Amino acid sequence: MTKEFFSVTPVETVFEHISGFSPTHAETIDIADAAGRVLAAEITADMDLPGFDRSTMDGYAVRAADTFGASEGNPAYLEIIGSIAMGETPDIAVRAGRAARIATGGMLPPGSDAVVMIEHTSELDETTIEVYRRVAPGAHVITKDEDFRKDEHILSPGRRLMTSEIGVIAAMGQSNVSVFKKPVVGIISTGDEVVPADTKPEAGCIRDINTHTLTAAIHGCGGIPRSYGIVADRFDELFHIVQKVLEESDIVILSGGSSVGTRDLTIEVIEALGDALILAHGLPVRPGKPTILATCGSKILWGLPGHVASAMVIFDVFVRPCIRQVGGDGEPMREKHALFATLTRNIASAQGRIDYVRVRVEEQDGAYLARPVLGPSGLIRPMLEADGLIRIGMNTEGLLKGTEVRVIPFAT
Amino acid sequence: MTKEFFSVTPVETVFEHISGFSPTHAETIDIADAAGRVLAAEITADMDLPGFDRSTMDGYAVRAADTFGASEGNPAYLEIIGSIAMGETPDIAVRAGRAARIATGGMLPPGSDAVVMIEHTSELDETTIEVYRRVAPGAHVITKDEDFRKDEHILSPGRRLMTSEIGVIAAMGQSNVSVFKKPVVGIISTGDEVVPADTKPEAGCIRDINTHTLTAAIHGCGGIPRSYGIVADRFDELFHIVQKVLEESDIVILSGGSSVGTRDLTIEVIEALGDALILAHGLPVRPGKPTILATCGSKILWGLPGHVASAMVIFDVFVRPCIRQVGGDGEPMREKHALFATLTRNIASAQGRIDYVRVRVEEQDGAYLARPVLGPSGLIRPMLEADGLIRIGMNTEGLLKGTEVRVIPFAT
Repeated sequence: MTKEFFSVTPVETVFEHISGFSPTHAETIDIADAAGRVLAAEITADMDLPGFDRSTMDGYAVRAADTFGASEGNPAYLEIIGSIAMGETPDIAVRAGRAARIATGGMLPPGSDAVVMIEHTSELDETTIEVYRRVAPGAHVITKDEDFRKDEHILSPGRRLMTSEIGVIAAMGQSNVSVFKKPVVGIISTGDEVVPADTKPEAGCIRDINTHTLTAAIHGCGGIPRSYGIVADRFDELFHIVQKVLEESDIVILSGGSSVGTRDLTIEVIEALGDALILAHGLPVRPGKPTILATCGSKILWGLPGHVASAMVIFDVFVRPCIRQVGGDGEPMREKHALFATLTRNIASAQGRIDYVRVRVEEQDGAYLARPVLGPSGLIRPMLEADGLIRIGMNTEGLLKGTEVRVIPFAT
Repeated sequence: MTKEFFSVTPVETVFEHISGFSPTHAETIDIADAAGRVLAAEITADMDLPGFDRSTMDGYAVRAADTFGASEGNPAYLEIIGSIAMGETPDIAVRAGRAARIATGGMLPPGSDAVVMIEHTSELDETTIEVYRRVAPGAHVITKDEDFRKDEHILSPGRRLMTSEIGVIAAMGQSNVSVFKKPVVGIISTGDEVVPADTKPEAGCIRDINTHTLTAAIHGCGGIPRSYGIVADRFDELFHIVQKVLEESDIVILSGGSSVGTRDLTIEVIEALGDALILAHGLPVRPGKPTILATCGSKILWGLPGHVASAMVIFDVFVRPCIRQVGGDGEPMREKHALFATLTRNIASAQGRIDYVRVRVEEQDGAYLARPVLGPSGLIRPMLEADGLIRIGMNTEGLLKGTEVRVIPFAT
C-alpha cells in the first residue's frame, strides 16, 4: 500500500497546466443560441452607431440658440413646421425660430441641434409652441457615432456572451456569430460498490451520484456531458472504456475510486495508455487529495475522488476552469464575484495543504456571515445547505471565528 | 398628448400581481436534463442513506474498545481476519482483538464499530497489525441513516435544481424528476424605425436589438423564447400578431414603443383584446417608466421600453421574477447574493421614483467599489461595461459618494 503515500503537485502548477491546454475549434451559430457561449472571432463595428443623430426624448427638434433665455416666465415662441416620422430621413429643415415634432428615437432634421422635452413646452395652437426651458446644443440627442464608430473594436475572442454582448452583436448586423465549440466531456463512474441511480442498491452498494452531479456541472460551465456508465474495478474493462471515451471526448473524467485499490487501478490504466503524461497525482488540498490530472495526446483526463462532495469541490476549483479553458474562455480561472463575509466559528486546518470548506452565506445587518457546513466527508446533505466555498491557505493552521473570508458562490 | 401623463402603479403592487400568477403544469424529464429546472413534486428519501454503516477511510474495521490506551509507544496488537470487498456484505465478523481490512466506502463488518486509519497502523505480518492511536466508537464511520432517513422529506416543489439537488435526487433512486414546464415567452418587437438585425438600416432606422437580448435573457431565467419578428406601428397588424402570440405563449413581451405614438398604440391594442386587464401602465421607476403589465385570461403581457438598456433593466427587475413565478420557482423574487460596495461618485435621483443605476464592480483592498456607468439612455456601450444594478429608493434625492450600496449582479 505504499502507493498511498504519493507526492503532491502544487496547485499553482496544476493551474499552469490548465492554462496551457488548447481550445476547441470554432463554429458559427445563430445568435439566438449564443447565450453563454464563448466568442471565437473579434467583433468590430460595421457602421457608426446609432448611424444618425437621434432624439432620446419625445419633444421638439430645435436650434438650441433659439431657446437661450427661455423660462417659465419668459417662454420662447417657435413655429411648428411638421413632424418627424419614425424610421425616415426628415424632408424638412429647422431654420431659426422653428421647431419640428420628434419622438424618442427619431432622426434630427437638418438645421436642428437639440431636442426640447415635451414637458417643457406647450402647444398654443397647431403652428406655435411655447418653450419654457433653455437647452444646450446636443441636449437629448445621441450623435451618429456616439455609441460606436465604424471599424471600432468592440469584443475580443474569449469573451463569454451574455445578454449585453449578444445585443451588441445584433446591433452590428450579425445574426450569426463564431464561437468555440463546446468541449465534449466524457464521464466514467468507477467502483465495484457503485450501482446505477435508478436501481435499489444491495447492502454495501451505493447509487451512482457523481455521473449526475457532473452532468449538471458540466452543462453549467459550457461543456457537453456524455455519460459512459459505471465500470467495475477491473483493469481490462476500465482500460477499454477509457480508450473509447478518449476518442470521443475532449476531456475525460473518471470519478469514483475513493478506495486505494480503485485509485491504484485508475492510475495504472492511465499509465498504460500509449502517450499518457501524468501531470498531477495527488494535490495538497482537502478534500480531494487523490485527484489525478493527465493528458493523452491532446486529450485531458481527470481522476476525481469518489465522494460526491469531494468530487464537486475538485470540480469547482480545478475542472471547471479546465473545461472553460478548452472552451476558449479568455478568463478560465475567473470566479464569480466573491462575497466578503465574517466567519461564524473557528475552523482548524493543517499547514501544507489548502482546505476548501463549504459555507452557508447569511445576511445580517447589511453584511454577510459565512457559516461552515461541516460533517463527515461522505455525507450528501451538506451539499444542499451550502452556498459556496472558502479557501484556507497552505500556511495557516486554521481560521478564527470573526475572520473576514472570501466566499466563492457556487456557479450552479 | 395627454396620454403621456399617465398615473403610475407602485412597484410593490406590481410584485403582488407577479406573485399571484399561476405556474405552468408539471412534466417529467430525465435528471440529465434537469439542471436549472424547477422541482414540481416533493422528494423524499426512498431508503436510509447510505443504507449501511460505511467506512470513510482506508484502514481497519475494529472494536473501538480494543484500541483504548493505544499510542506510538504502546501500540495495540490486533489479528487480521480478512478484507472487506467493496460492494458486498461482509461474511466475516470482528470479535475482540481482531480487525478487518476495509477501504473507503466499504461496509462495516458485524462486531466492528469504528475504523482505524491505515496511517495509524503498521502490518507486522500477514495476520497482525500494530495500532498506534485510540479511536472512539463511530470513528471514521457514517451510520446507515446518518445522511437521510427513509421517508424523510428532502426537497420541496419550487426548488430550483442545481448540481447538489440533482445529486440528491439521483441518490434517492430517481432517474426522472417532475418539474414545471418552461414558460413559453413570445417576443414582439415594434416600431417603424426598427429593422431586422441582419439588414443594413436606412438612415433613421435602427437594428432590432431587443429581440436578441430578450431571447438570451429569457433563456437565462428558464423560459423558452419565441421571436415573432418586427411589427410596424399599425393597429391591425399589431392586434393580429398579439392575438396569435397570446394563443401560443404563456407570457408575451412587446418591446419597442419608445415614442409616445407607439406606446399609445400598444396600450390601445391591449385594451382592445377581449378580456384584457391592465394592471400597470407606467411605473415610478427610471429607466422604464412607460412599462405596461396586463393580463388576458391566464396569459400575461409586458410592454417594455424601446431602448435596449431600459428594457433590460425592466426585464431584470420585473420580467425575470415574472417568468420565474410562472415557471414554478418558489422564490421568484430572490436575487443573486448582492455585493456590498462603496459608491465612487454622487448620483442624483428624484424623490417619488426608484432609480436603477448600472454599475461596474471593482475590487480594492478586499472590498468592492461600485462605479456608476453613466451616459445617455439610448447608448448600448454602457451595457457592456456594467456588472450589476443599484437601486435608489423613492424617498431619496440621490446617493453621495462613499455610500455603502447593494449591487445586484446581472444574472446572465
